[in-house]
Amino acid sequence: METRYPRNAWYVAAWSKDLDQESGKPLPVEIMGEPIALWRSNGALVAFENRCVHRAAPLSLGRCEGGNLRCMYHGFLYSAAGSVVEIPGQESVPDHARVKTYPVAGRSGWIWVWMGDTEAADLDLIPDVFDLDDPDYLLVPGQLDYEAEASLILDNLLDFSHLTYVHSESFGSGSEFAYSHPRWETLPRGLRYSKWTTGTRSPPGQAGQNSAVDVLLTYDFLVPGVLVLWTGLFEAGTAEHLEYAQPDRSAAIGGVSGSSQAVTPLSRGRSRYFFSAGPHRSCGDEQERERQAAVAMQAFLEDKAMIEAQQKIIESTRPDVMPSSHDWAITYFHGLQHKLSGG
Amino acid sequence: METRYPRNAWYVAAWSKDLDQESGKPLPVEIMGEPIALWRSNGALVAFENRCVHRAAPLSLGRCEGGNLRCMYHGFLYSAAGSVVEIPGQESVPDHARVKTYPVAGRSGWIWVWMGDTEAADLDLIPDVFDLDDPDYLLVPGQLDYEAEASLILDNLLDFSHLTYVHSESFGSGSEFAYSHPRWETLPRGLRYSKWTTGTRSPPGQAGQNSAVDVLLTYDFLVPGVLVLWTGLFEAGTAEHLEYAQPDRSAAIGGVSGSSQAVTPLSRGRSRYFFSAGPHRSCGDEQERERQAAVAMQAFLEDKAMIEAQQKIIESTRPDVMPSSHDWAITYFHGLQHKLSGG
Amino acid sequence: METRYPRNAWYVAAWSKDLDQESGKPLPVEIMGEPIALWRSNGALVAFENRCVHRAAPLSLGRCEGGNLRCMYHGFLYSAAGSVVEIPGQESVPDHARVKTYPVAGRSGWIWVWMGDTEAADLDLIPDVFDLDDPDYLLVPGQLDYEAEASLILDNLLDFSHLTYVHSESFGSGSEFAYSHPRWETLPRGLRYSKWTTGTRSPPGQAGQNSAVDVLLTYDFLVPGVLVLWTGLFEAGTAEHLEYAQPDRSAAIGGVSGSSQAVTPLSRGRSRYFFSAGPHRSCGDEQERERQAAVAMQAFLEDKAMIEAQQKIIESTRPDVMPSSHDWAITYFHGLQHKLSGG
Repeated sequence: METRYPRNAWYVAAWSKDLDQESGKPLPVEIMGEPIALWRSNGALVAFENRCVHRAAPLSLGRCEGGNLRCMYHGFLYSAAGSVVEIPGQESVPDHARVKTYPVAGRSGWIWVWMGDTEAADLDLIPDVFDLDDPDYLLVPGQLDYEAEASLILDNLLDFSHLTYVHSESFGSGSEFAYSHPRWETLPRGLRYSKWTTGTRSPPGQAGQNSAVDVLLTYDFLVPGVLVLWTGLFEAGTAEHLEYAQPDRSAAIGGVSGSSQAVTPLSRGRSRYFFSAGPHRSCGDEQERERQAAVAMQAFLEDKAMIEAQQKIIESTRPDVMPSSHDWAITYFHGLQHKLSGG
Repeated sequence: METRYPRNAWYVAAWSKDLDQESGKPLPVEIMGEPIALWRSNGALVAFENRCVHRAAPLSLGRCEGGNLRCMYHGFLYSAAGSVVEIPGQESVPDHARVKTYPVAGRSGWIWVWMGDTEAADLDLIPDVFDLDDPDYLLVPGQLDYEAEASLILDNLLDFSHLTYVHSESFGSGSEFAYSHPRWETLPRGLRYSKWTTGTRSPPGQAGQNSAVDVLLTYDFLVPGVLVLWTGLFEAGTAEHLEYAQPDRSAAIGGVSGSSQAVTPLSRGRSRYFFSAGPHRSCGDEQERERQAAVAMQAFLEDKAMIEAQQKIIESTRPDVMPSSHDWAITYFHGLQHKLSGG
Repeated sequence: METRYPRNAWYVAAWSKDLDQESGKPLPVEIMGEPIALWRSNGALVAFENRCVHRAAPLSLGRCEGGNLRCMYHGFLYSAAGSVVEIPGQESVPDHARVKTYPVAGRSGWIWVWMGDTEAADLDLIPDVFDLDDPDYLLVPGQLDYEAEASLILDNLLDFSHLTYVHSESFGSGSEFAYSHPRWETLPRGLRYSKWTTGTRSPPGQAGQNSAVDVLLTYDFLVPGVLVLWTGLFEAGTAEHLEYAQPDRSAAIGGVSGSSQAVTPLSRGRSRYFFSAGPHRSCGDEQERERQAAVAMQAFLEDKAMIEAQQKIIESTRPDVMPSSHDWAITYFHGLQHKLSGG
């Protein structure tokens, strides 16, 4: 792939809920062109190259047998460490009969796979996102596959000026996203976006309804492509008082919701987009959760239509761009990815 | 593309009726592998490279705003001349922020795009075809996309000996197309085909029914791939009297109909075939128009089946041909295309 | 294709029943990437390159005219020997107007095409398989197209240890296939597999029901990829008495069935699998035939799912294998193919 994605990073491979413990069936996924079989060895997550050493049959068609995984083509049996421990009809197993394993961890409802050096795999580098089971939020999970390069989705998420045009109907975003600039701060492995919209009307059903409020939209955007978004309403004047810095979130008077999103490159020109979103329990019920989920899905489909069309144009023409003033974050983040990719 | 299509030529890009003035939505087309967005700036046709200079989003997903076109990804606004006149959130616009434009014109119901040097674009080179709204004819428009190289469709249209075999059921063509040769004349940018069938029976419902008539089938075939066909019945003996030259068309005694057809290369191995056909008002009513349209569509689908199969065979084997005596016009026309392509 | 398939071999191209004599329509097939038109010239099988010498139209869209075949694009007429005998509108036909022909023969219900040197085509090299119309067996024909390299299907058929895992539900195969080894013998153009399962229970409905029997499963596997399988039950003790050699088949006490299978490479990564299977008349009726056909189809679809998944993994990773002790026959057969391919 021309785009450089860092290998020393945790990629979201799947939802934990989608790797069924009972069925004993592995889950096939793909990251950066590599086929991977996820399974549980006595409950513990394991990630194998999805390829039997014998004749390349997919281990995701295999069967969990206690702590081991059996290839269901000719019966090779693997330990959780990746070693073949039995070859039916053969007394001994050669030492080199091993499948590549990947560091893997379950956290916040997602299964994360480390694509780089095993020794460098550091669980502390897993981004801290909203847990799907966060007791304070009512989150709805979803995912979409894109026929587009992951980097195009990252670029989309790093330039919210598109909200004014792409999402004017779904999110009802106004011109403030395109015609003014957010505040950006750098983070050790990413960027923080903050945008205060001041003196706007509180939406119906929220505290302070129809009175003037300040709205904060903020997100962290973290390597290799994880977005953690938070929004909330504050009393009018809060932004100015704070000089547009981050507020104490507990001071929000309504409209609080959160979202976690992650973009995983499947292979050249193909990506998977994972997301959850929903209101804080203090600001919405099940019905509000469903309403927000429907709006978010509409917006995600608006993005998908634009980005897949963009991908096709790039393929039939050329990849070069002419950056605008909104592209600072994209440039910064690509540089960060590039640096971490060791290139 | 291996096949040489001349760039200095007007290609049919779309039907004028398909570029809706009211909706304010551009129309995406593709010619010779280049994505193009057609739109109307205060009514005047404009053809842009379908690619925003910013990040390659398709401008065909944009929105017409008066005389300008706005990219609906991040809001870049273009004048009809192709210059970016506004970048939201940015005070100045760099001079090189321009999109490629193509000379474009609407004529005879089609939108024509010039793929070559802008300075060479000469409206007089637009082929003179039957206007879809010609008051003398009752024409039905249509189009078909081919999974085949445009040149294979041109070859088909330049050798009517295939009528005997491919269209024996739809058009009911007899052996005269394969077993005798038409008269060919050269034109400045093409060829003229004439075929007299003499002493045949006038078809039911036409003047001179069941008496012997001479039938003329004639078409001009013009660069880059436009066919203008005319057919009519004449009193028996006309052909011989004229020494098989072109008659005064007003002397036709019935069976007059016309057709315009154009072949546009979309990209390697893909083409779009535009056509209209129908009777002269003096020789048919709405019912006759529909009957002829149904027969023509059957014939066009017969061609499509053969040509797409031919394309597959060429792809899996080799492109070389063994010309027959009917291939003279194909060879001549390819030479003309080649000469005009500047190669 | 990377895999070497021998050209000097008879490949199954189609079922004889699928080349309709009445319709006069040729049958298009593909072998090793070459398009072929099968037709009957006054009843005699003919195999042409499926490509008119004129402009590469498929001759399979042609029309049989007595002993000749006419291309239905521009009417070129071919003799059964491949020579063009008429070009409509042209007095003479050049000597080099000839289409490539392939040696072809109908035998045992299949149409066999020789892909190598015509002079080397020896009808005696057509493998001897169960005839679809064998009066002693009740065979059901079938075929499946694979999105997989033919060699992967050959490998599957040369290592029956997969029965224990892939077909444990359809055929109900036990661990004996994986955990013990069959007897292999070499044949002039292939291998013979024999596996005795001793002292097992006779299945319901067969002679000696519920008493102990010895079961023989044996097949010949012949170049270029033809399998002829036979199975039968014998009195307990037969295997030991014969020292596990081949028995006199007429001594079988029940459970006799036969199967012919052939794998044809269509093109890179695409294959066609032909098969027939069914009981001996002494061991089953129409109902038993249908039951066996349903089980066989279930098993063939199990293979197809595994092999097509294997193909995808190989494409996205690498083709290398780590042979097991069961792979001896695969290695031997590939060597045989390689030797016969003249490489």
